[in-house]
This record gives sequence, C-alpha cells and structure tokens, in this order.
Amino acid sequence: MNQKQNKQSGGKAAKTAITPTRAEDYPQWYQQVVRAADMAEPSDVRGCMVIKPWGYALWENVQRVLDGMFKATGHRNAYFPLFIPKSYLEKEAEHVEGFAKECAVVTHHRLEDDGQGGLKPAGELEEPLVVRPTSEMIIGATYAKWVQSYRDLPILINQWANVVRWEMRTRLFLRTAEFLWQEGHTVHATEAEAREETAKMHEVYARFAEDYMAMPVIKGAKPEHERFPGAVETYSIEAMMQDRKALQAGTSHFLGQNFARAQDIEYLGEDNQRHHAWTTSWGVSTRLIGGLIMTHSDDDGLVLPPLLAPAHVVILPILPKGKPAEPVLSWCEQLAEELRGVRFGDRNVEVELDTRDLRGGEKTWQWVKRGVPIRLEVGERDIAEDSVFMARRDLGVKDKHAVKRSEFVATVGVILQEIQDALLGRAKAFREENSRVIDDLEAFKAFFTPENAENPEIHGGFVKAHWDGTTETAERVQKELGVTIRCLPEDGEEPGSCIITGRPSAGRVVWAKAY
Amino acid sequence: MNQKQNKQSGGKAAKTAITPTRAEDYPQWYQQVVRAADMAEPSDVRGCMVIKPWGYALWENVQRVLDGMFKATGHRNAYFPLFIPKSYLEKEAEHVEGFAKECAVVTHHRLEDDGQGGLKPAGELEEPLVVRPTSEMIIGATYAKWVQSYRDLPILINQWANVVRWEMRTRLFLRTAEFLWQEGHTVHATEAEAREETAKMHEVYARFAEDYMAMPVIKGAKPEHERFPGAVETYSIEAMMQDRKALQAGTSHFLGQNFARAQDIEYLGEDNQRHHAWTTSWGVSTRLIGGLIMTHSDDDGLVLPPLLAPAHVVILPILPKGKPAEPVLSWCEQLAEELRGVRFGDRNVEVELDTRDLRGGEKTWQWVKRGVPIRLEVGERDIAEDSVFMARRDLGVKDKHAVKRSEFVATVGVILQEIQDALLGRAKAFREENSRVIDDLEAFKAFFTPENAENPEIHGGFVKAHWDGTTETAERVQKELGVTIRCLPEDGEEPGSCIITGRPSAGRVVWAKAY
Repeated sequence: MNQKQNKQSGGKAAKTAITPTRAEDYPQWYQQVVRAADMAEPSDVRGCMVIKPWGYALWENVQRVLDGMFKATGHRNAYFPLFIPKSYLEKEAEHVEGFAKECAVVTHHRLEDDGQGGLKPAGELEEPLVVRPTSEMIIGATYAKWVQSYRDLPILINQWANVVRWEMRTRLFLRTAEFLWQEGHTVHATEAEAREETAKMHEVYARFAEDYMAMPVIKGAKPEHERFPGAVETYSIEAMMQDRKALQAGTSHFLGQNFARAQDIEYLGEDNQRHHAWTTSWGVSTRLIGGLIMTHSDDDGLVLPPLLAPAHVVILPILPKGKPAEPVLSWCEQLAEELRGVRFGDRNVEVELDTRDLRGGEKTWQWVKRGVPIRLEVGERDIAEDSVFMARRDLGVKDKHAVKRSEFVATVGVILQEIQDALLGRAKAFREENSRVIDDLEAFKAFFTPENAENPEIHGGFVKAHWDGTTETAERVQKELGVTIRCLPEDGEEPGSCIITGRPSAGRVVWAKAY
Repeated sequence: MNQKQNKQSGGKAAKTAITPTRAEDYPQWYQQVVRAADMAEPSDVRGCMVIKPWGYALWENVQRVLDGMFKATGHRNAYFPLFIPKSYLEKEAEHVEGFAKECAVVTHHRLEDDGQGGLKPAGELEEPLVVRPTSEMIIGATYAKWVQSYRDLPILINQWANVVRWEMRTRLFLRTAEFLWQEGHTVHATEAEAREETAKMHEVYARFAEDYMAMPVIKGAKPEHERFPGAVETYSIEAMMQDRKALQAGTSHFLGQNFARAQDIEYLGEDNQRHHAWTTSWGVSTRLIGGLIMTHSDDDGLVLPPLLAPAHVVILPILPKGKPAEPVLSWCEQLAEELRGVRFGDRNVEVELDTRDLRGGEKTWQWVKRGVPIRLEVGERDIAEDSVFMARRDLGVKDKHAVKRSEFVATVGVILQEIQDALLGRAKAFREENSRVIDDLEAFKAFFTPENAENPEIHGGFVKAHWDGTTETAERVQKELGVTIRCLPEDGEEPGSCIITGRPSAGRVVWAKAY
C-alpha cells in the first residue's frame, strides 16, 4: 500500500472496496476486482481458470452479440476436431514454429494400473495429437476436401471453441493456458475478396469493442515481426487500459495463399484452370473480458457497460424491522416485473432482486463490486412516496438520489444508454490524455521512463512516432524501453524520419508498453 | 439392396433420394441421410467428426431451448478446465474404472525438433492430464473450495463443453471420440433436495425430447449395472428409433455422497456440525441430433421438427426462361420478409430463399434432403394468381398444392405446429406398434429373433417383461439375445415372476436392443 500518496491527496485514505487501489498496485488491483466480482478464479490445473457464473454470463453476452454480427455478415457456425495430428502442424513452417513451443500433446489413449495402486498412461498413439492452439491446420485440411470448383467459394465459417497454449505466466482472462474464443476461417477465389473479408471482420471487432464494450480501439496492421505465424498481414484492434498499457483485443489475418499451398486448397476456376484459394482467419477470446474489466473498473470494483452487463438493475429491498417483509418484497417484485418488460439494446432489461436478509451495507457492496449499472434501494418510506433510491455505478458510490417509480420505469432505457455513452466517453478521454505525437527521441524515452510518471506503476501511454520499418529497430526499442509497436494505424501514412535511426519512415506508428 | 422386397411391394422400386432405404440397410441409410443433409462428416482425426453448418445450426437450436429450460429451473452456466490431473480421476474408484480405459492422455507440453526434419513430444509433464471424459472430478474439486456453510448451498451450475472418450467404434453424432454436450453439476445440503434435482432434470430432458424434438421417450431408472460410474441412481430417457432399437438420449444421476466423500465437499450445517454434501450430475449431447434424425427421417432424407429446424420455410423461385428474373425474385424476397415477421415457438419464422440458377428438380431435392418443413415453389403463374405452391416435408415429396399467398402467411405458424404435432404423433404410433408386454420366455425370444421379423435388419422393439433384479440374469439375456434392460419405467411396479428365471420380480422393465 502506498501510504505516502494517500496522505498527499487529502490526509486520510478514502475507503475503497478494492485493496490495493489502481494507483497502489495495478496488477494486484486487477486480480482483486476479478475476485471481488466473483468472475473467475485460478484452477488447480496449471494455467487453466474456472470462469464463474458472473464472468461466464458476461461472456455469454459477448458471444450473443458477436454471433449476431458474424451471421449478419454472412457467416455460419460449425465445429471441427479438438485434436490436430502432429503431421498437420508440420505442414506450414512459420505456423509450427509459432505454436510448437507451447502446446498440449496427447500421446496415449488410456490409463492402466501402474502396479503401485495408481495409474499410468498406456495405449501409445502412432501419431501424437496436439490440442488445438488455433485451428488453421485442421480446418484447412477439411476445406481442401470441400473446395473443388469456384462454385464452392466463398466458405464463410466461424467456430466457438476452447483452445490451449501452454503459457508459462498466466493471468485470469488475459493469458491462460486454456481459453475460450471464436475463430473465423474463410476461403475465397480471389485476393481482393479475401482482403475485403479481413478488413470487414477487423471492422466488426472495432465496432463491437466501441459500441458494446465501450472500449475505444485503434485499428491498424501489425508490423511484420508481430504477425500471426504464417499470415501475410495481421490487423488488430488495440485498446488502452487504465495503467496506460495497450491490450491487443482482436486480430484479423489475411493469410494469402500460404495455408492454401501448405494444405492443397485448390479450386477449378471459371477459366477451367486450377488455382490455389485465398484464406483468412480472425478471432477474439475471453481476453476481451480482461480488457473490459481494465477499461472501466474503479477502486470499488467492476464497472460494466450496460449493453453487455449480465444484469442492468439490482433491486435491494430494505426489510423493515419487526414488521412483515411481504409488502416491501411484493412491491419490489412488481417493479422488477415491470422493468423486465422494457427493451434495452438487443434484449429486455435484466433485473436482479436481492431479497437476502443481510445488513444493507454488505448487500449493497456486493453489487457495487459486481458492477451492476443501476442499484435501486427500496424501503418503506420510498414506497410511501412511490419512489426508489437510485445509484448509478459509473458515478461512484456516493451518487444516489430519489426518483419517482413511474419516472424510473419510463426512463430506465435512456439512463442505461447514458451510462453506456458515459463509459465510452470517459475511456476515450483517458486515452486522449495519455496519447502523444512525439518526434524527438529524448522526449520519447522520457515518456516511457517510469521515474517520470506521477506514480511508478502508471506511466507512459500511446505514442505516435516515426519508424524506419525494420524489425531490428523495433526490437532495439523493445529491449531498451520495453515498448513495442502496437500497430500501423489506418490514418498514419505521412513521410518522415525514424525517431530512432533517422532513416526514412512511411508514417507514424503506435508505440506502447503492452499486455 | 433388397430387390426381392421391392418386387413384393409393388413390382417396381419407387425412386428415393436416399440409397439404400431404411428397409434395405438401416445403418447405411443413416450415414447417407447425414451426408445428404450436409450435417456432418468424419474427420481425419480418429473418431472425431466435423459438424457442418446445417448440423451445427440444429445443435444451436437444441442449445438455445435447453439453455432456456436450465435457466428457468434456476441454473447458471460456468466453465471449468478441459484437463483433469490423473490423481483427481483416481479419487473415486468406480468412476476411474469407468473412464480410464478410453481417455486421451496429455503427457507433454511442447514439440521439438526430432533431428529428422520432424517434431517429437518434449517437456514431459510431472503429472499426466486427462482430457475430460466428464467433469465430476474437476468440478467437484472446485466445489470443495466453494462450499463452506449451508448458506453456500445449493450450487446449481451447468457447463456447455466438449468431452473426449476414446471410442473404438464410432458413428456420426451417435458415438464419437470427441462430442459436444452440456453437463449440469449441482450440490445440495440434503438427500431429498438432491433427489428432487435429479428428478427435475430428468423431467426437463423428457419434456425437451417430446415437446421440441417430437421424440417420445420412456422415463425410468437404469438397472445397477448400467449406472453412471460412481452414481447411486441413474435415470434416463429412452427413445425408439425406426429400426426399433432403443437410444438412450439423456441421463440424470443422483450421486449420493459418493463424490462428496471422494472430494471432501463438506459444509457446516445449521446444527454447527460438518456434513458431506449431496451431489447430482446430468447431461445430454450431440447424440440427440442422431436420435432426432433416426426418429423422423424417411427414404428421401432428413425430416426436421419445426421447433428445432434451422429453417422453417424454403422459397424456391422458378426463374422464367428468356425473361428478367427480377420480378419473381423481388416478389419472393417480399414474401420472405413478411414470413420472417411471423412468430413461431420461441423465435420468428426462419426463411431460406434459394435464388441459385439450378434446374428446379436439383434445387428442390437438396432442400428435401435437408429436411426443411415447408417448401414453397413460386413461378410466374403462381405470382399472377397471388399464390404459392406449397409442400410439407413430413407428407412425402408428392404432397403439393397451391395456396393463396395471404392465406399462407396468415397460417404458417399453424401449419408448422401441425407438422410438429404430426411428427410426434407418428413417432408415438410407431413406438406403440412395436412395443409389447410379454410374460412368456419363448414369445420373448421370438420377438427378438431377427429371422422372425419382416426384414432381417428391422425386428424387435420394446418389451415390458418381468425381471428378477439381478445383474446375472440381465447379462445372460444380453449375451444370448443382444437385448438389454433399458430402464425400470416409472409406472412399472407390479409384482410378478421373472420371465427368465421365474424368481420374484418387483415389476416389468423395458427390454430392447440398443445403440
């Protein structure tokens, strides 16, 4: 805990629901927010997490909205095997290089008595199987059979699945050995169509991040050394977290003909000639949940954008002492039912009614920490006045006021949209405050030097600066400052000189420390 | 092909879209229906299937409806790790016995150069991990940490996931090494509550099978030797396929305190004493899709119950020769849009508009084989008369008639419900026709002797007959006749004498050959 800072900012530490605060220890704050909101926890299995109901309900909302966007852009879902034969992985050289170092390998198909009261692996497989770290190699092998003629194209398929990458340093939602995701895999007759698909899904991700997660993102291409293994181009969306680090939140890959060549995805064209097809892949994962948490939450815990919140409103009846609770409860139940009839976004308003007989403060704090956008406290006096006591989660725990019941019901959709907009506005303002255009190397270094920040744990941000386009220069900066090129932004073209080497640059790129 | 039978039944074989027919070769017919409907195919990975978009869309509808039923009964979704440490599996003796013989074992966490241009497993794990064949042991280990006091109970959680059982003989949807399923896992303070939960979910499955799949089922308890490994009681729903074999389509397990003891799931009661909790688990899988196919489909391919069909109506415009197609297409598009505004079941009517310029017959047959409940053919003449040419899939390919456009739009929901009801009625009648109460051993044997059936591939059915309650007797019948006890039906209690041994029986049980 950073006692000194608290003293400086007013003498007495404000009480917060989360300890430590963001300023005190950002990584620990994140873990505590996840725990306090009851979203997920580490499991006993190395690197794997348990996603608890509140976290999973948020993921279900992410899935529902994204799935609708994928279907609206012509995609259908399908399901392919969990396992990839080792020989399939070996087909694309860069791809295997990228994934062989961290994959779960199945070598046996049963367990048998080890003669010491335990079990040992038995039934060795002729060919080891890898638990999919991504499915290009297994889906492509299937597509090679499906694609015969240009009439079979395009193939526009998405898969919701679990994948495994044997990460050594894991963090809930942000980096886990097993994670949930979707992966789109498409095949096209022409380069132009495949590039268009890549761009379209890149835009779908950006729209989802901003319009639903209220998380502003920068769209751009990754530099060559940061591309998906085997891709010709990788495009990403990059968001700024509250520690000013970047989070890569979704990627869309133009795979050219690399995978089609490795896997013999060929079609007979209208010209009666055989051609290799053009493929793309694109994905987002449960990492989005981590990004959402770090974009909006505060020192009292989770803050949820209403369009994705598992519940929009929680009603907290204040049970009268020494009197029957029934009149208060039934008033609240009626209110809940009425609210559930109101439309908001792509679903009806979802209401939690917490009738547990806990002390008021404890109950309230549980819902604050879970990030529900609107809390309503309802006691006998409120009912007498036909009103509720309303608090908006995004305005901090002290913002509460009475509002007439009928007025609340009539305006709940508007209030939720206001909260959604306020969260996006706040996140955009934060990113703008912490973004710079820098053309001077010393200023660039100073910006990323922890000692120069107000607080040693929070420094830097996004910098747009010229780069000479070489991996060598990028790696030098990464080594010296721990700063990477996040992307070549869409609007970044403008000739200049590299801030590091002085060599010619085609435009400014986005630099940041990153997750 | 059974030429003789075709001759007997009318001299000339009727042309069917599926070869062979059900009568000719039922298992092959099934594979061909799946293929012709483009639902799934075997993958190159041993025992794993690829679920194609049409099959997956059906699974999505199954998921949506079941998920709603689970949530309506108080359950929430969560997600637990794919991997189970070997030592966890070893904790419950019967359970490990049941699953150790067929499981995928992960032993390494990377691949490295084998010095011969290929890769070999490397980074051996200290403890092998099993890919979950079911999740009692990993979810229970987590619950043991969550449950402290009676206030933490009940825990009512469901998981949608993939599981792997190393099956040697696989068949699309019915039995595959990897399959998709849901598994509910609940914890309760008392035996009565856990038994109530088991019964409730058993009933949910029966309701789903009959009300949505239009697949009648018998509810009952499994005999001891057919229980889930580690369970105190297993309840199943059993359906009759068109080859008169039984398909176990869903199970609900009362686990007693067996797993709670093996995993230390204990709570402090209101009495201030520590107690082992009571647990249940219940699941259905993509096997349901196989059951749905085999219940309704005919010799022209898939027949879908409207409440789960990926599309309810397909519109097939007949494009005029040598004239612009636009007027026909735009009339069809408007009709499609209007139909999409009609409510049916828990969603709006889903319409496919197939504008491909294929010969009429080819296009029609594709949709027949895909099982869409209603086909509408629309040509210039129909438009002139403001009508459509309608065919119901369940009535066979020859049933077609003209209906006014406005009348069709007004009644489409009613027609779909009629189809749904007709399919259930037909399946119920088929089961009744092929079910017997038998109290005589010779009659029992004769019923299950293939030579006595009209066709050697289709014989038998369900028999209710007395059983002495011993595993020995059941195994004798299974060995001699290939017939198993499917369940002890809910309404079966009635004292009598075992049909095999003559010993006392508590009631008639259901016998059948089974998948």
